[in-house]
Amino acid sequence: MLESLKQQVLEANLDLPRYNLVTFTWGNVSAVDRERGLLVIKPSGVKYENMKQEDMVVIDLESGKVVEGALRPSSDTATHRALYLAWPQIGGIVHTHSRHATIWAQAGRDIIALGTTHADDFYGTIPCTRAMKREEIQQEYEWNTGQVIIETFAQRRIQPQDVPAALINSHGPFAWGKDAHAAVHSAVVLEEVAYMAMHTERLREEISPISQNLLDLHYLRKHGKNAWYGQE
Amino acid sequence: MLESLKQQVLEANLDLPRYNLVTFTWGNVSAVDRERGLLVIKPSGVKYENMKQEDMVVIDLESGKVVEGALRPSSDTATHRALYLAWPQIGGIVHTHSRHATIWAQAGRDIIALGTTHADDFYGTIPCTRAMKREEIQQEYEWNTGQVIIETFAQRRIQPQDVPAALINSHGPFAWGKDAHAAVHSAVVLEEVAYMAMHTERLREEISPISQNLLDLHYLRKHGKNAWYGQE
Amino acid sequence: MLESLKQQVLEANLDLPRYNLVTFTWGNVSAVDRERGLLVIKPSGVKYENMKQEDMVVIDLESGKVVEGALRPSSDTATHRALYLAWPQIGGIVHTHSRHATIWAQAGRDIIALGTTHADDFYGTIPCTRAMKREEIQQEYEWNTGQVIIETFAQRRIQPQDVPAALINSHGPFAWGKDAHAAVHSAVVLEEVAYMAMHTERLREEISPISQNLLDLHYLRKHGKNAWYGQE
Amino acid sequence: MLESLKQQVLEANLDLPRYNLVTFTWGNVSAVDRERGLLVIKPSGVKYENMKQEDMVVIDLESGKVVEGALRPSSDTATHRALYLAWPQIGGIVHTHSRHATIWAQAGRDIIALGTTHADDFYGTIPCTRAMKREEIQQEYEWNTGQVIIETFAQRRIQPQDVPAALINSHGPFAWGKDAHAAVHSAVVLEEVAYMAMHTERLREEISPISQNLLDLHYLRKHGKNAWYGQE
Repeated sequence: MLESLKQQVLEANLDLPRYNLVTFTWGNVSAVDRERGLLVIKPSGVKYENMKQEDMVVIDLESGKVVEGALRPSSDTATHRALYLAWPQIGGIVHTHSRHATIWAQAGRDIIALGTTHADDFYGTIPCTRAMKREEIQQEYEWNTGQVIIETFAQRRIQPQDVPAALINSHGPFAWGKDAHAAVHSAVVLEEVAYMAMHTERLREEISPISQNLLDLHYLRKHGKNAWYGQE
Repeated sequence: MLESLKQQVLEANLDLPRYNLVTFTWGNVSAVDRERGLLVIKPSGVKYENMKQEDMVVIDLESGKVVEGALRPSSDTATHRALYLAWPQIGGIVHTHSRHATIWAQAGRDIIALGTTHADDFYGTIPCTRAMKREEIQQEYEWNTGQVIIETFAQRRIQPQDVPAALINSHGPFAWGKDAHAAVHSAVVLEEVAYMAMHTERLREEISPISQNLLDLHYLRKHGKNAWYGQE
Repeated sequence: MLESLKQQVLEANLDLPRYNLVTFTWGNVSAVDRERGLLVIKPSGVKYENMKQEDMVVIDLESGKVVEGALRPSSDTATHRALYLAWPQIGGIVHTHSRHATIWAQAGRDIIALGTTHADDFYGTIPCTRAMKREEIQQEYEWNTGQVIIETFAQRRIQPQDVPAALINSHGPFAWGKDAHAAVHSAVVLEEVAYMAMHTERLREEISPISQNLLDLHYLRKHGKNAWYGQE
Repeated sequence: MLESLKQQVLEANLDLPRYNLVTFTWGNVSAVDRERGLLVIKPSGVKYENMKQEDMVVIDLESGKVVEGALRPSSDTATHRALYLAWPQIGGIVHTHSRHATIWAQAGRDIIALGTTHADDFYGTIPCTRAMKREEIQQEYEWNTGQVIIETFAQRRIQPQDVPAALINSHGPFAWGKDAHAAVHSAVVLEEVAYMAMHTERLREEISPISQNLLDLHYLRKHGKNAWYGQE
């Protein structure tokens, strides 16, 4: 069942250690089959070096129940479900504790666009969510983690396809894309811009975002209807 | 004698360079056999690439005498013994000079919990010990290094199983766990949170710990009676 | 056509991941054949691990038209052309988003010569360009990126052979040399001095450049008519 | 001639990239045969991956003339000679531009002992030399680089065997030891403590050296007449 999607999710998970985004098993990638209403996600606590295609867990998107798989799904599954249900335009999600994105999340701060590396993949500020409330933590924590991301994007009027990542306050990043591979791409770029933004701020007392013109040029040549960048 | 425990201790020692926690031979792991009152520890000054199971040294926990082994035990053996004797609940200990944990130790500062990466394995602040006194240094230095850790945990009422690491003032970290493998796990996470805490502090003027609710949720889902995280 | 130059450009491009100067496909190297008025450059968006000599794209230096090659050339081709046309003394150009050079570019700051590592390859300050204007961004952006570098060097009276790199404001570095290999050399040294300058500044409140005497000794023993350094 | 010493010098040079102390060919190791009054040193500008035992250059210690070898010796040979001639107790010397030691050199600052990692191999502050004068730079620069190190140790009454490294103002580190291997050891530890000291300073407003008692305990258990650390 969903062999091809499982393979994609497996490969995307294996990319996490390859791009130095994870320590131990701290990270998970999922992808969704919108037609069938199913998502495929990494099992919980399994080492990347031993992970096989058949270990991937198939979950019913609506109910959250396991449809196939011998192992327990990632403990963050409910966050993935919340995002897929709220945002029909995304097809893959990554969660990591990658070092520099997590540093910004721990500081409770947004990452503003300071350069074209950021602008090439994120159309403006990458937001950090508010701190979660006691009741949100004590009940349905993972589901509520998704809700607080969704709330942040709604309140700030950010489209998830324009800014494919968020920082969870005191926790770490989620990133997404049209599929599992694109989600990993977002997570890698996020980590890169998080590192650079942290140090840019120390070299310049007053930081301010790059000009809207430069943001537009870099983002829009790669994304959206008029994109022309690359081989196609 | 204790072949299986020696093998575990060897493998845990070999994990130190694998996780980039050591330079040269700066690090050592031990494990204890509580029934027999023996501990197995790395020999002093032997290169990791040449280390073999039979090089591991067996020590009488109570007296500190070598029971088996052709090589001299790690110079830190008395610190390991002090901790095992004071804390019956631990089974493995690691000492390293891993870069970022050592930076906090050199600064003489505790690492407070700034995010869920910390909360997943440490139930609150990782303490830094007080500076050692002249007489503690000049006589039984390694034993007293253990005593000052024990004193710190007692005075602050921290249970060693809840916070499985300490920073030795002006020196570096010790970490522990239920066995040698768990101790290495603690040392890896400590190094990770030490790096992130150092940089988080620079992004936020006033740092404060994460909420008790978030600390509870993350720590208690992985540790203690009601833990449910992972495959079992 | 230009087989040997294509091979050099391929090898120089493959050096970018080898020296940790690029993530994904973020970087490109070109070289020029001055006699024929042609430049050879990396194709756009092709992974380094799959890149072959025949993928290199041959461009007419004057018109910018593709002369040979099945793939689209790097989107930065016009910047390369602008520099080659303005500066007949250079033979190879590299563009990357290498982390620390990009941090200085994002901060909009020059890198002054703080040590002999810098002086060995850059005869003084590595300049950061001014922010580009709206009209420069919206029309012929890549060509104008080259023009703003050329303007910076002209206004500051820096010879491109003396300081073989520039930081593009809010973007990242360009580096160059007598051929593709020398350009990569400049890019590697730039990244190294960018890292060291960033941290030097934090250790010393008032930074000032190294003495002119030391700059002269180090630069002139390796470069120019009286150079004597190395095996020849 | 001196086959065994050449082999040691070759191996010590190959350790420089292995311990991430060098970029390109920026580093050199030498060793001395005191009886014959000869030193063996790396050739200038040869890549580490191609370096062979027979490439090592034999130099007359007193006159500086090449006694054997087809290649030109390292451009820093005169600095090595100056140190060997002034300090009969040392047998091997390393020069690198390792990142963090160079950062301190560029800042013109000493590295004080902030922890036991430092104390284990350096008996107190690692000094940074004064800036060199115009005439010292313009004539016999490499020889004078040695002289300014020697002057620094004499003025501060530091024994070179107690503190086996120095930072050359605006340049980078030299390190030494009883042989080439020990010199590389000093260079590795220097780089490690340079990194840690840089960050320790940011975590603690007022830094001060570790206690003399702790410095004594750690240094003297590994060095000098009463050393007992390790397997012998």
